[in-house]
Amino acid sequence: MRYADLFGATRREAPRDIESINGQLLYRGGFVDQTAAGIYTWLPLGVRVLERVERIVREEMAAVGAQEIIMPKLHPKEYWEQTGRWDRVDVLFKLESRTGKSYALGASHEEIVTPLAQKFIHSYRDLPKAVYQIQTKFRDELRAKGGVLRGREFGMKDCYSFHATREDFLQYYDQMLVAYRRVFERCGLTATRVRASGGDFTENISDEFHVETPSGEDTLRICDACRIGVNVEIAATQQACSTCGGALRETTGIEVGNTFDIDTKYSGAINFTYTDEAGVAQPVIMGCYGIGTTRLVGAIVEAHHDEAGIRWPASVAPLAAHVVVVVPRDAEKRVRVMGAAQDLMSQLSHAGIEALLDDREDTSTGAKFADADLIGIPVRIVVSDRALGEGGVEVKYRDAAEGSVQPRETVVAALVEAKGRTH
Amino acid sequence: MRYADLFGATRREAPRDIESINGQLLYRGGFVDQTAAGIYTWLPLGVRVLERVERIVREEMAAVGAQEIIMPKLHPKEYWEQTGRWDRVDVLFKLESRTGKSYALGASHEEIVTPLAQKFIHSYRDLPKAVYQIQTKFRDELRAKGGVLRGREFGMKDCYSFHATREDFLQYYDQMLVAYRRVFERCGLTATRVRASGGDFTENISDEFHVETPSGEDTLRICDACRIGVNVEIAATQQACSTCGGALRETTGIEVGNTFDIDTKYSGAINFTYTDEAGVAQPVIMGCYGIGTTRLVGAIVEAHHDEAGIRWPASVAPLAAHVVVVVPRDAEKRVRVMGAAQDLMSQLSHAGIEALLDDREDTSTGAKFADADLIGIPVRIVVSDRALGEGGVEVKYRDAAEGSVQPRETVVAALVEAKGRTH
Repeated sequence: MRYADLFGATRREAPRDIESINGQLLYRGGFVDQTAAGIYTWLPLGVRVLERVERIVREEMAAVGAQEIIMPKLHPKEYWEQTGRWDRVDVLFKLESRTGKSYALGASHEEIVTPLAQKFIHSYRDLPKAVYQIQTKFRDELRAKGGVLRGREFGMKDCYSFHATREDFLQYYDQMLVAYRRVFERCGLTATRVRASGGDFTENISDEFHVETPSGEDTLRICDACRIGVNVEIAATQQACSTCGGALRETTGIEVGNTFDIDTKYSGAINFTYTDEAGVAQPVIMGCYGIGTTRLVGAIVEAHHDEAGIRWPASVAPLAAHVVVVVPRDAEKRVRVMGAAQDLMSQLSHAGIEALLDDREDTSTGAKFADADLIGIPVRIVVSDRALGEGGVEVKYRDAAEGSVQPRETVVAALVEAKGRTH
Repeated sequence: MRYADLFGATRREAPRDIESINGQLLYRGGFVDQTAAGIYTWLPLGVRVLERVERIVREEMAAVGAQEIIMPKLHPKEYWEQTGRWDRVDVLFKLESRTGKSYALGASHEEIVTPLAQKFIHSYRDLPKAVYQIQTKFRDELRAKGGVLRGREFGMKDCYSFHATREDFLQYYDQMLVAYRRVFERCGLTATRVRASGGDFTENISDEFHVETPSGEDTLRICDACRIGVNVEIAATQQACSTCGGALRETTGIEVGNTFDIDTKYSGAINFTYTDEAGVAQPVIMGCYGIGTTRLVGAIVEAHHDEAGIRWPASVAPLAAHVVVVVPRDAEKRVRVMGAAQDLMSQLSHAGIEALLDDREDTSTGAKFADADLIGIPVRIVVSDRALGEGGVEVKYRDAAEGSVQPRETVVAALVEAKGRTH
């Protein structure tokens, strides 16, 4: 991929209404564009990051046996009336068709997935089951802020599990917590489990996963010994860890996932039961598990950046290497350097390494380096007359202060080895 | 994947309001569920087919240099007012936020992509460019019919290209026609290019791609010699081929793709120009290219089925093989047959072949065979005491009348070979 061919270039400044660090860097780096407040377009570099995040989520969902489905975004009013949430959820976008039918735009999918599962789950033999989707959600936020952290339209993985007993649910809930930790770790994030309120979803306690950042929306009190915390919204006065009694550290966090014990709240609303081994109808127990996929990209940027730009973890970087060509004025040297860059790109391509090639001739090397830092691909490779003279190319990691000249083959081999580690 | 674990089973009957063959078979086969008229949920088997179709589309879009983006579904009213389509497009769903902002739900994305491209395309050096997305579209249809062929909410690949000159556009348009032919061929469809009206998109002529089926919504007149046709909606009286003068055959077709010469219709509306080599501002020329991805799945079913069910082309089949176990009553034989099925599943898995295992004990072999025919995976493998006695398993292709007993290794090797051909 040549930088010059890329749809969506870097930009010097973000609009003033994009206040957050993630919004500014994703906008300036050419990952997103803002169509309206809280409504973003994902550009090719952004789509690549999102795809890598989504793949990690899919792999971990598959690991806990959840099956992918795609539910609709248009939800007929009847579904939301059955649970009483049509009038109660204030962020619900509502619309009417030409023929007078009323719909909500899916803000979450309990209302759809519960009657869906009811069609297929009849007996204890059909349980447990878990389904998930990666789906656009809509929320009529009064004020959309925080870049891609809180949009009116955003990507979310939502998973729903169905169980015969509380014991089975609790066991699966623990498996899901492990899957969640793995998702966040693989995305380069340290997320802390935090007890919180269930919001509109349930009266039971829920868990949130938070990434600590100075810009976090939520105030948390965390026990570093137990790696667990509490959201002050439900326990404003709690000063000590409920497990070990130790002191709690106050911090701020970005919520990147949540898990809810919704028990029989939704199954009960539509009388969704299964027949147990004795032939008796029993209520189906449910769990619900969300990860904001577009929000996760924002959280990664909040956690991994410096003054020059983004520092993507290798696991979610849009490409594995950023090749910058220092184009010489001298015609003969120019041919040699451009040829070496092309050779390097071929070698990388054959080795299965995706790289961005910046061989712009109308742009200064300084500006190209600044763009590379802003975009934040983990490895920068500089092809220059000087480096070729020293027998190689200059490799600089995004998080290192200095680079070093290495033979091309060594560089390619190191990237192949790194790719093996992150996959 | 065990059939018993699958979310979404086969069903004897489809609701009466699902009239079309594709809707009935996709519903009965456990590929989709109907949430409301024209609004479908894609179940795990359906998601697999859709993913395979989308992958083919992505590969062919990449082959013509189109880059993937994701535009929003919520379109602020201002965008649609600028082109005068807010009031003119009757299928536009409209809604208002709590704070009084008006949005359309994206029925197509010219209004969004044109100002987006304007942000990045300034000079002739920035041209040509092409972007696409695979995106949910919304249309407020008065009557949603035809199964997944005409929904109120559906998946679509829409691509937009930007050019400096008409010549460059026309050249790219021809490349896109080739890409379209490849997409349809790879999906197992014979699609005919048909001249049609541009609808709400353009006053210029557009091309449609149609798959001939008895259930097609459109009436076409086709020249078999030139492999080109005309939609009667624009040429009701045309009786001869405009190219060779030969007779036209009247038939019906399902539209699976369309390509539009939108020229400067949308760029002109927002004064989107580029600077040419002489420094003069020139209008940007645009093309627009759609493929209904969910509709494509429906068209494949309309073209590939028989009375017993679907007959998926291997390239888009949800899984490569359907393993049916004839479970013996005798305990000793039962252990041997179940063990052989497990061994086969392991062999297939190691060879990278995804298979569905139907080892239900409470279901008759006849019912399992009927489900296999309905679901329509191209290869059925029967593991039974009888076949084991004959030294193998029984292999039957979905489109063959009879099966034959072959050694397990031969079967696995044939599937590996077939996989190589379709990828």
